[in-house]
This record gives sequence, structure tokens and C-alpha cells, in this order.
Amino acid sequence: MPRYRLTVEYDGGPYCGFQAQAEQPTVQAALERAIEAFCGERIRVHAAGRTDTGVHASAQVIHFDTDVIRPKNAWVRGPNACLDPAIRVLWSHEVPDDFHARYSALSRSYRYLLLDDPVAPAILRGRVGWFHMRLDVDRMREACAALVGEHDFSAFRGAECQARSPIRTLSEARVERQSNLVAFTFRANAFLHHMIRNIVGSLVYVGADREEPAWIAELMASRDRRKAAPTFAASGLYLAGVEYDPELRLPAFRETSP
Amino acid sequence: MPRYRLTVEYDGGPYCGFQAQAEQPTVQAALERAIEAFCGERIRVHAAGRTDTGVHASAQVIHFDTDVIRPKNAWVRGPNACLDPAIRVLWSHEVPDDFHARYSALSRSYRYLLLDDPVAPAILRGRVGWFHMRLDVDRMREACAALVGEHDFSAFRGAECQARSPIRTLSEARVERQSNLVAFTFRANAFLHHMIRNIVGSLVYVGADREEPAWIAELMASRDRRKAAPTFAASGLYLAGVEYDPELRLPAFRETSP
Repeated sequence: MPRYRLTVEYDGGPYCGFQAQAEQPTVQAALERAIEAFCGERIRVHAAGRTDTGVHASAQVIHFDTDVIRPKNAWVRGPNACLDPAIRVLWSHEVPDDFHARYSALSRSYRYLLLDDPVAPAILRGRVGWFHMRLDVDRMREACAALVGEHDFSAFRGAECQARSPIRTLSEARVERQSNLVAFTFRANAFLHHMIRNIVGSLVYVGADREEPAWIAELMASRDRRKAAPTFAASGLYLAGVEYDPELRLPAFRETSP
Repeated sequence: MPRYRLTVEYDGGPYCGFQAQAEQPTVQAALERAIEAFCGERIRVHAAGRTDTGVHASAQVIHFDTDVIRPKNAWVRGPNACLDPAIRVLWSHEVPDDFHARYSALSRSYRYLLLDDPVAPAILRGRVGWFHMRLDVDRMREACAALVGEHDFSAFRGAECQARSPIRTLSEARVERQSNLVAFTFRANAFLHHMIRNIVGSLVYVGADREEPAWIAELMASRDRRKAAPTFAASGLYLAGVEYDPELRLPAFRETSP
């Protein structure tokens, strides 16, 4: 049975996360409904990352199996014709049947966009996080160094996290400013529940001069969630890419994706 | 009676334009309600530009008169505490009583943001216009030259336009690309109804190779609206600035504004 991989962009605002739940609007349910409407067959989608309520994706990756034969590009246009406008299929590709959107992923990249300005965003509300004063990017960058590598991330692990181990390998932790938007980029083999929003919360304490850059390393060493800052808002978080073996040919993401 | 000038950002999506209309949600009504709730007095706001349904503003300018005395910064925080989250006051300033947001304005700047990509925007839906194929920015830039200066803009005038004269002076018409977003900037003493969205529609015909760059000059000379392209979507249009006599001290706009 052919297996298709789709790259999907969505505004997470209207959804209770990716994963299907009875009676709740979810990205998975919307995608399955649209693909089924297009191909006339029951299908089940599997995603690289199960984003939380309100979290966006500029490049989520899903796969599904179907016996329905359609021209290649139809797997973009067909589902899009049936989908909510908050979700768009960007790209489709047939993949070998041992490809799995989640289990074949080598790493995931997330971005967190934060407006640091005295006034909350109106035009970008729901699309960025917000902090009411200018943050010091250099201090946050210095603090980020402690995050990179294989570490126990218990200090940034959400209470509902179901992962067996709190050990994760962060291969990238970057902070950049573009005028009054601060963009955080994190890449890891996998992330714990709320891990990025918890890290961003604590980095904001450092950027706002409330804690020293070395505090992040101390938090990590303590493995104590209660010592870290509160979880930052979902509205600024984007699943921005999923990396697979280069031989599986990466999709061409939108260039303007967050 | 003191007169205050506020700079206001809004997402025009939820509103039937700026100007108050009975039984319709408008930006003016929302602002008057919030300022009245804060100062406990009936006030009337006047705006530099009466944006249409769905049109945004990153820097609309309004003024109002009040006898209520409040600390200077309170005219930002107070109304914001009462306002819809789709509208934010960015800045306030007391102005001489002969200042008028509309009549003192020397010029207005608008930006039009357009995603040119095979797939419609999900995350930026309602915030940008969309065209399904890549546009040639150089061709559109060449076409823009014909727009600059004092001209009869009848070819780009909306049917409901109530202006006495179709003559306007365009001091700037610019097209830039940032990856797959095309940004058009127009500055003029004033604009006719739907003028920018009509110009953008015709420039898109040029950028898509459907018309030659010289066609824009021909349209202008014809003064015939029926020859031009259809009006482009409101979702990509932003009132991005209002210019006054420099002695009146310009507000500091958000740097990241579209």
C-alpha cells in the first residue's frame, strides 16, 4: 500500500493540539477528515510532533497509507480543497513503507517568536509570545550554551510529561533579534512536554536581568522544575522543521516560515 | 480642552472598517467605548485614515478632546486595559488644539503584503494577500514608475468613492521581495477609495506576465476603471504611517510593524 508524506502548515490557535481527542477540534481530526473527503477512504495520519493546544507548525510532517491512486500533486490540492483555512498542505511525496513521520525523524526544530515591547501585539496576537520590556539577547545567548548537548532536562519538564527518560540531546539553541521580535531556535532528537516553553520562560528571566546567565546551568543541575520560571505562552511556539535521513529527500519548506 | 493624539495598531479582520456605523463592529466604536470606559466621559475620536472592512493598521493616528486629567502614559495603558485585544494603543501625546488627525496629515503611507506561493497562507491568513504563483518584482517595479507624481487616478478609483477629485499626488511607490512575501509601499497626500487594492491588482497582472509594465501607464491615461484588474483582497493592506509637520513630533512606531 503506497505511503505518502505531507508537509503541513497550521495556525494552532483554533485547535486543541494535534492529537485527535473525542469531541475536541484537533489538527489530526481536521486532516483525516479532509484527506478522507478527498480520497473516499478511511485513513489514519501519523505526525512527527504532537503539538499542544495553540502551538503552530510551519512544517509539521505527517504520513498515511492509502490504496487510492491520484496524480502526485493531487495530494496537496485535494486535501487543501477540503481543509479548514487554518491548515494547509504544502508538499507531498510518496515514501518507502518503512518511513514513519515520528519514528524515522532524526530531530525536530522548534522556533519561539516573542515580541518584547511595552504594548502587547494586536496584529500578531496569537502568533507570537509577548514580554512587556526589552530583553537582553546577549545574556540569553550566553545562558543558552548550557542547554546544548545531552542533558537531563527535568528542570524544564512539564508535570504531565509521559516520556520514560528526561534525557534529551539538544543540538542547537539560538537566540536572534529582528527589531522588536526575539526568535529562539531549538533543535533536539526529541523534546519533553512543555520543555521549550519552560526554557523560554527561564531565558526571559535572564534576558530581563532578573537572573544571571549562569542560572540556567544551575537549574539544569538541580533537575527541579519548581526552581525554573513559569511556562511561557503557546502562541509563540512553532514546529518549524523535522529532519530525516538526507536520503529520504527533504521537503522544500516555505522560505518565509517562522 | 486638552487634545490627545494616539497611535493605534489593529487587526482589521474582526471589524467593518474604522468608521462607526450603527449595529456594526467598527474600530472607531471599540476605541470610543474603551476610552470612555477609562475616562468616564463621552468622547469622539477622529482618525487620519478611514480604513475599510478587513484593512489593518500598524500606525493609525487618532485624536480626541477631553477635560479629564490623567498622567501622560495613562492614555496608553488605560484604553488598552478596556480594549479588544485586536486593537492596541501604542503611543499617546498631547497636541495643540489646532492639530487634527485627518486634516493636519501631510501624507499617508500604506503597505500591501502579498504571499506569492502555490499554497495559500495558513499561519498568515487574514494578514496577507495571496497569489498562487511567483511574481516578477522587477516588472512590477518598472510599472510603478508611472504611478509616482500628480495624476488622475480614475482608473483605480472604487465605484463608491466620494472624493471630489480623482487627482492625487503619489510621492512613493515601491515593491520589495522578502523570500516569498512581496511588500508594496505607497505614500500619497491622500488615496481614493480602493485605490491601493486596485493598483495592486493591476500590478499583479504585470508581475504574472499577463500584461506588460507599460500597461499601468496606459490604464492611468485611459482613466477607465473597467480596463484595470479586479480589486485585491483587503487582508494584505496596512495603514502603516501618517506624516505630519515634523514640528508636531512624530510618534515612535513599532519597529516590526508591517
